[in-house]
Amino acid sequence: MKRTFGEIYGILEGDVFKNRIELSLSKVHKPTQAGISGSENEGADSIVISGGYEDDEDYEDTIIYTGQGGRSDNSKFQVADQTLTRGNKALAISCEKGFPVRVTRGLRTIINDTDIFVYRYDGLYRVDKYWKDRGKSGFIIWRFRLTKIINEIDLHYNPILKEPKPIYGKSQRKEILIQRIVRDTYVSQQVKNLYDHKCQICGTTIETQTGFYVEAAHIQALGKPHNGPDIVENILCLCPNHHVMFDYGMISISNDFQILGLKNTVLSIHKNHNINVDFIKYHREHFYKETF
Amino acid sequence: MKRTFGEIYGILEGDVFKNRIELSLSKVHKPTQAGISGSENEGADSIVISGGYEDDEDYEDTIIYTGQGGRSDNSKFQVADQTLTRGNKALAISCEKGFPVRVTRGLRTIINDTDIFVYRYDGLYRVDKYWKDRGKSGFIIWRFRLTKIINEIDLHYNPILKEPKPIYGKSQRKEILIQRIVRDTYVSQQVKNLYDHKCQICGTTIETQTGFYVEAAHIQALGKPHNGPDIVENILCLCPNHHVMFDYGMISISNDFQILGLKNTVLSIHKNHNINVDFIKYHREHFYKETF
Repeated sequence: MKRTFGEIYGILEGDVFKNRIELSLSKVHKPTQAGISGSENEGADSIVISGGYEDDEDYEDTIIYTGQGGRSDNSKFQVADQTLTRGNKALAISCEKGFPVRVTRGLRTIINDTDIFVYRYDGLYRVDKYWKDRGKSGFIIWRFRLTKIINEIDLHYNPILKEPKPIYGKSQRKEILIQRIVRDTYVSQQVKNLYDHKCQICGTTIETQTGFYVEAAHIQALGKPHNGPDIVENILCLCPNHHVMFDYGMISISNDFQILGLKNTVLSIHKNHNINVDFIKYHREHFYKETF
Repeated sequence: MKRTFGEIYGILEGDVFKNRIELSLSKVHKPTQAGISGSENEGADSIVISGGYEDDEDYEDTIIYTGQGGRSDNSKFQVADQTLTRGNKALAISCEKGFPVRVTRGLRTIINDTDIFVYRYDGLYRVDKYWKDRGKSGFIIWRFRLTKIINEIDLHYNPILKEPKPIYGKSQRKEILIQRIVRDTYVSQQVKNLYDHKCQICGTTIETQTGFYVEAAHIQALGKPHNGPDIVENILCLCPNHHVMFDYGMISISNDFQILGLKNTVLSIHKNHNINVDFIKYHREHFYKETF
């Protein structure tokens, strides 16, 4: 049975469902209990965020979602470590492959003067980062940052601009997934220049027709909830391959600048580049595969 | 003098200017004659699209913009080949670095019953691809696809969601550039599986915590104006480094599957993967650095 990613035909963003059974029958989110719909080989296609979990954070267009597992029955509190398995692994796969995830929120609302709890489908989100953390209870939790996919141009290349957006259901346009967005800042350019656009791990530089291509990696990630600063002390100059490995936690950096995850490899550091070890420590603790 | 990229303080999208002098004084687009504002080392910060050039295509949110040079004086027609220099090189740099480009359109409008020609600032665009082509006159032209940056979430990570969008002027939020978007499709997954997520050029595979990371490269690009099909015959499985090199035209493929741009390297091809040479030819002619 093939999992359906993306919009469900006939369902509009904002549609409301009375309960988890009705939500399940709509195909927006099939499991009637689990918060994550997905499997360890296919990825995750939908989540439900019901509010109240001690480690979730909901900012509407950005959601910091806490993985499953490690909670006691009938409780919202962590009593054990979570692992990157089942639904958590499914969400990580959707992150790495760029699959869209349907988000449904459970919320209180007033209909006909009655205060009721309903489920509202809130559209497609992209899992743009995942990492581990210690939750408020002190146990390891896996966290996922989901960002709302707001305009279809990014997804579809907008091949037929005259075509109106469909009133409901799945667009007829070709579906383009976003597998990865490489973000950059103006400060990053300074670091790239310092290293002549060469990777600090392998020395690779990619020549282009106008100069050289290399990427800037923020060590402590930008944006919620990491809030790493956009300063040269928090930026590495990496080739795309090592950037992917760094972002997905396959490599990290020790306090004496050894590359963890690669044998006998040291980070090249320019004498004018003062990398702050606090940021390295943050990356190691939250992103590196061997942590905890 | 530092070039200003992004929004100009006090200028709103939709603002109209009577002529190029007024537009220049506003700082939206400083040159009073040239269509591209930029330099060969800093990149391009703005363009004016006036309509009428034989090779421009304007679909509002997507613009296929033709580079400068090779036109006769007082004519809109090509009389010589264009080169990747000056404004063209500046636009290519903005593509590779992810710089936002202000777009102004020259257009006819009716104000107080009078039909006049004005310049309207239409917001920020991203140069998401550049390539060369033979224009309608038979000469080489450089072309740039610009896509409108519609929501600020992509640019800003939306760090403070409660903050209202400023009525005018530059946002106070941190500016995040998008250097590169790796697009993918569901069909791509088949090609990745065929190669066990190994690069067809170097055999590299990037292990992650959930599996393997590799990218799919459409040989004849998707979307306007290339309109390459989303089929396995038009897709390669490449590591991020070789994907960047392929997209920026530093490497291409000969009809006998040698890698052009790398010495003595042959593309690995699975026996069930029938790569169509027409798509390879398209890539060679439009993207490869040595073409023409």
